[in-house]
Amino acid sequence: MNIKDYLEQKRVAVDRYLDQMMPPTITPPTTLHESMRYSLMAGGKRIRPILTIAAAEAVEAEPPGLMAVACSLEFIHTYSLIHDDLPSMDNDDFRRGKPTNHKIYGEAMAILAGDALLTMAFDLISRPDLMKGCDPVRQVRIIQELAYGSGNFGMVGGQVFDIQAKNIDIDLSTLQNIHRHKTGMLMRAAVRMGAIAAGVNDRQLDDMTDYAEDIGLAFQITDDVLNVTGTREELGKNPNTDAERGKKTYPTFYGVDSTKKLADKCVAQAINRLSSFGPAADPLREIARYITARKN
Amino acid sequence: MNIKDYLEQKRVAVDRYLDQMMPPTITPPTTLHESMRYSLMAGGKRIRPILTIAAAEAVEAEPPGLMAVACSLEFIHTYSLIHDDLPSMDNDDFRRGKPTNHKIYGEAMAILAGDALLTMAFDLISRPDLMKGCDPVRQVRIIQELAYGSGNFGMVGGQVFDIQAKNIDIDLSTLQNIHRHKTGMLMRAAVRMGAIAAGVNDRQLDDMTDYAEDIGLAFQITDDVLNVTGTREELGKNPNTDAERGKKTYPTFYGVDSTKKLADKCVAQAINRLSSFGPAADPLREIARYITARKN
Repeated sequence: MNIKDYLEQKRVAVDRYLDQMMPPTITPPTTLHESMRYSLMAGGKRIRPILTIAAAEAVEAEPPGLMAVACSLEFIHTYSLIHDDLPSMDNDDFRRGKPTNHKIYGEAMAILAGDALLTMAFDLISRPDLMKGCDPVRQVRIIQELAYGSGNFGMVGGQVFDIQAKNIDIDLSTLQNIHRHKTGMLMRAAVRMGAIAAGVNDRQLDDMTDYAEDIGLAFQITDDVLNVTGTREELGKNPNTDAERGKKTYPTFYGVDSTKKLADKCVAQAINRLSSFGPAADPLREIARYITARKN
Repeated sequence: MNIKDYLEQKRVAVDRYLDQMMPPTITPPTTLHESMRYSLMAGGKRIRPILTIAAAEAVEAEPPGLMAVACSLEFIHTYSLIHDDLPSMDNDDFRRGKPTNHKIYGEAMAILAGDALLTMAFDLISRPDLMKGCDPVRQVRIIQELAYGSGNFGMVGGQVFDIQAKNIDIDLSTLQNIHRHKTGMLMRAAVRMGAIAAGVNDRQLDDMTDYAEDIGLAFQITDDVLNVTGTREELGKNPNTDAERGKKTYPTFYGVDSTKKLADKCVAQAINRLSSFGPAADPLREIARYITARKN
């Protein structure tokens, strides 16, 4: 299979669905909808929704409500970027080559756009029209996965660990803890939500969870490497921001070359976790490889 | 029935449940959990969870998961207060007689505590242990009510309308629109969620929804009145803040006396909506009366 074509095709489908889900900017509250849409449609890779879709495909073709389930993760991811960029957090002026949300709409609206995107993620996966045909027992499990993965023991917890580590001489296990929560838990939720929607069995769900944890780590390690080796054009923001902020990352501990090897090891392990799955899991396997090969 | 005893008994039960739901402050991320707990346990009236409980009681004794459903509303309400108080929003230093969350924990942690409380609301009502025995079809409907009532078309939308009305000469219909969304939609969700948990029929749900809309308006009108007539001791914050900020409220349009009469009319109408319910709906009726009689 051609992973680039696969990712592109799914990205287009996700973008189209996200666009349909967002109320038009003429619908009140208009500025809120503009602000939400500005960040949601800013051209991300949509890796989390695609993971959800690929995980479902690995089990069954297309379970009802899959696009809503997949896209709920992009709502969560987008809200987290808006809030992380705020002056009181990372104070970033640019994201994906464009001014950050609060630079355009102001801090108050950026906070509210984040809150609304977060809430809308749960709206999506509980809407009767979008989720029609989904077994309600599975649906509740999917909602629970999203809540757990994005909350105080998941993504938000990771952001707390991250800001607390600022200007502090952290050790490797602290860094791992930040990554596991801040990035890992939502990618884990993405894979599990797709698998649950498709009616995975317990054994398969365990394997998929291990896969997700491995690629989550590989993803964050690669982000750290790209921050050192990438160009402004590739990244859509200035490179080397981590080092400038005195932020410890994997390359700080291992150097760039060994860090790349560590990421490759995670990917190999992730693919190994899927040995009980057939060719339907090839997209998941290729996504694992893509994660370390990407340029942004 | 004695409504004061009823409210006090339910408030204690809600407080106890909220306390149990919050991870101990020794559980990492410790500062996040401290910050969440600080605002969640700051001694609110718990009017939204109590509405949920009373709505369920009006239909049936005690449906499974009711406390989780009820308390999810207090998580949402608390997050909204933390975010509303932020410097970029209302910039309030005191809330319920105590320093606001960001005055103690800083802006970054206050934003994240809000995000985590919002997310935890959905965690609560999707957790298999807390919701055991709840029909999953009802459960998904409850989750949808919470998402819709608190999101861009509900509470967050109302907050946007509110900040956009600042320093602008708004008319009465704009004020009504702010109230209907900012306060009304979450109280509407509270009543509907309790009723749905208890297995309400469609006709009854419509009546309860009308009731909720009436008391939501009465609640906000009374808040406006108390802001003019209350004392610092009663309110736990300075009175007359609306006028000082040049904020138009019901008393601005009608004067205090006529505004009180309008609130009474809403309450009478709310009680009238419940005519098809028996004595099991008495707590709902008494809560309606209490809403205009309260001192804070």
